[in-house]
Amino acid sequence: MPDARPVILFAAKTERWEQYSGPLRTALKDAGLGYATLTTEAAPEDVDYVVYAPNSGLTDFTPFTRLKAVLNLWAGVEDVTGNPTLKAPLARMVDDCLTEGMVEWVTGHVLRHHLGMDLYLDGQDGVWRAGTAPPLARDRTVAMLGLGVLGAACATMLASLNFRVLGWSRSRKDLPGVETEHGAEGLDRVLSRAEIVVLLLPDTPATESTLNARTLSLLPRGAVIVNPGRGRLIDDDALLAALDEGQVGHATLDVFRTEPLPPEHPYWAHPKVTVTPHIASETRAVSASRVIVENIRRGEAGEPFLNLVDRDAGY
Amino acid sequence: MPDARPVILFAAKTERWEQYSGPLRTALKDAGLGYATLTTEAAPEDVDYVVYAPNSGLTDFTPFTRLKAVLNLWAGVEDVTGNPTLKAPLARMVDDCLTEGMVEWVTGHVLRHHLGMDLYLDGQDGVWRAGTAPPLARDRTVAMLGLGVLGAACATMLASLNFRVLGWSRSRKDLPGVETEHGAEGLDRVLSRAEIVVLLLPDTPATESTLNARTLSLLPRGAVIVNPGRGRLIDDDALLAALDEGQVGHATLDVFRTEPLPPEHPYWAHPKVTVTPHIASETRAVSASRVIVENIRRGEAGEPFLNLVDRDAGY
Repeated sequence: MPDARPVILFAAKTERWEQYSGPLRTALKDAGLGYATLTTEAAPEDVDYVVYAPNSGLTDFTPFTRLKAVLNLWAGVEDVTGNPTLKAPLARMVDDCLTEGMVEWVTGHVLRHHLGMDLYLDGQDGVWRAGTAPPLARDRTVAMLGLGVLGAACATMLASLNFRVLGWSRSRKDLPGVETEHGAEGLDRVLSRAEIVVLLLPDTPATESTLNARTLSLLPRGAVIVNPGRGRLIDDDALLAALDEGQVGHATLDVFRTEPLPPEHPYWAHPKVTVTPHIASETRAVSASRVIVENIRRGEAGEPFLNLVDRDAGY
Repeated sequence: MPDARPVILFAAKTERWEQYSGPLRTALKDAGLGYATLTTEAAPEDVDYVVYAPNSGLTDFTPFTRLKAVLNLWAGVEDVTGNPTLKAPLARMVDDCLTEGMVEWVTGHVLRHHLGMDLYLDGQDGVWRAGTAPPLARDRTVAMLGLGVLGAACATMLASLNFRVLGWSRSRKDLPGVETEHGAEGLDRVLSRAEIVVLLLPDTPATESTLNARTLSLLPRGAVIVNPGRGRLIDDDALLAALDEGQVGHATLDVFRTEPLPPEHPYWAHPKVTVTPHIASETRAVSASRVIVENIRRGEAGEPFLNLVDRDAGY
């Protein structure tokens, strides 16, 4: 048995180790892997698994000669997928709790814009604004760009609230209760009808600046943008111009090209922009540790890994 | 056939007639009742049905000797249920669209409080408030007081978003996915656990000031009140005191003892109160007309009426 003892290298910043070491050890024990070595320092040639945060400093996987898998701590893998030294399988984080948090944030902010809440929150001025009831969700069109695990879950929840949901993805996907389109022309058709646009696309060269001057001009005037996906999906200058012109009515943004968003960035002071500090998809340590350990258990049992990244597609 | 031609008196304010006459005639025609007389003036002894708004001025039903039913335009019947001159069956408005609008408003404002949205909406100040992600809905307890058509629909939607939903009603009711309690002791138990309390109780003598100084003190400190039900469910002075003390963290109120809420009312200026102008359950004329006409069709066909009010219980 000592020879089979897997070595798991935790490669992430120190504060993550404080957050994850306990939950990971508990999850290993629960999975019958209490004998595994979980460490932040190991000789590369001894390491079987890397639990990985791309900002950890580890970028050269060449000396990791017996590596069975790299298990990403986050859903986003754009900073590792292009790494040519990584030959081992790469798994992204797919955590039900992460999906739940995203569904809650997206549903909440879509309903906020649908109901026109800001009008009342800003207008506690003694004026009874009768007759301002919004249309029903059944008469409101929401576009979901991206139908992966997160996008599909959010689209399904919005459909169950009776929103008319248009879903778009690069390649064709079907989703019950959602009218789906795909490809470049499908995107134009979806945007031309969308009153609220939610961005949950992966961050790849092909999705960079999906919302730009041309695509923003296709929207019905006054449409709202909600971005809990990735900052690079939006051309920021084009969005600011569209907000100033009134083409876009509001933008609620949780992710940015630079995070934290610098204090001098025009998004902060713009009256039609709401900034939230990358909270829509906060990974929770307990549930994420269970997901990581399930893949280690599979590796040790010779079963196929879950949530593998398609390195060619980049996600 | 002329003898069987039903006479329908529309008893509501003039602006309602402008809103409803077209949709009601369309719905009558669609139901094969295009031959019925729909009017705002008729001899009481000729009237078969009254489409009724309690603020119409009609309060003495004694001369309406052949009345088959009174069909209320709204869900609330508190201003007519105690009328001793009304002997005919009384039906309340139960409109799917009204339910949908209520579910949207309640879900939106519960998510707003759950996600702590106001922190970000008020704080667009360049400060990146990292680490402020809320707990998941699965770790948030919401109490739904009232499990009628509206309360049950809202509770079910909140449960599908993974909230821990506690439901309370006067008499015992079961609802899938919801932990239910009933009776006076059940109310105390529910309130002692509720982080967010939604009021959708009927307005009866028994429910007046359900939230008062004693019951508000049972809540976990900082709990949030959401009231789309009726203004009389809350003792306003007790709520204001609880807000000032910090016992209640926020109140989002759509209904009031006096509407419109007078400009000088302390709710308007209170930093922990959000006022919305009775928009959570706006009746939509097209769908409401179909509901009313379905009851007329049933009356003419000798079938039982839908949505009858229990006059003794008061709802």
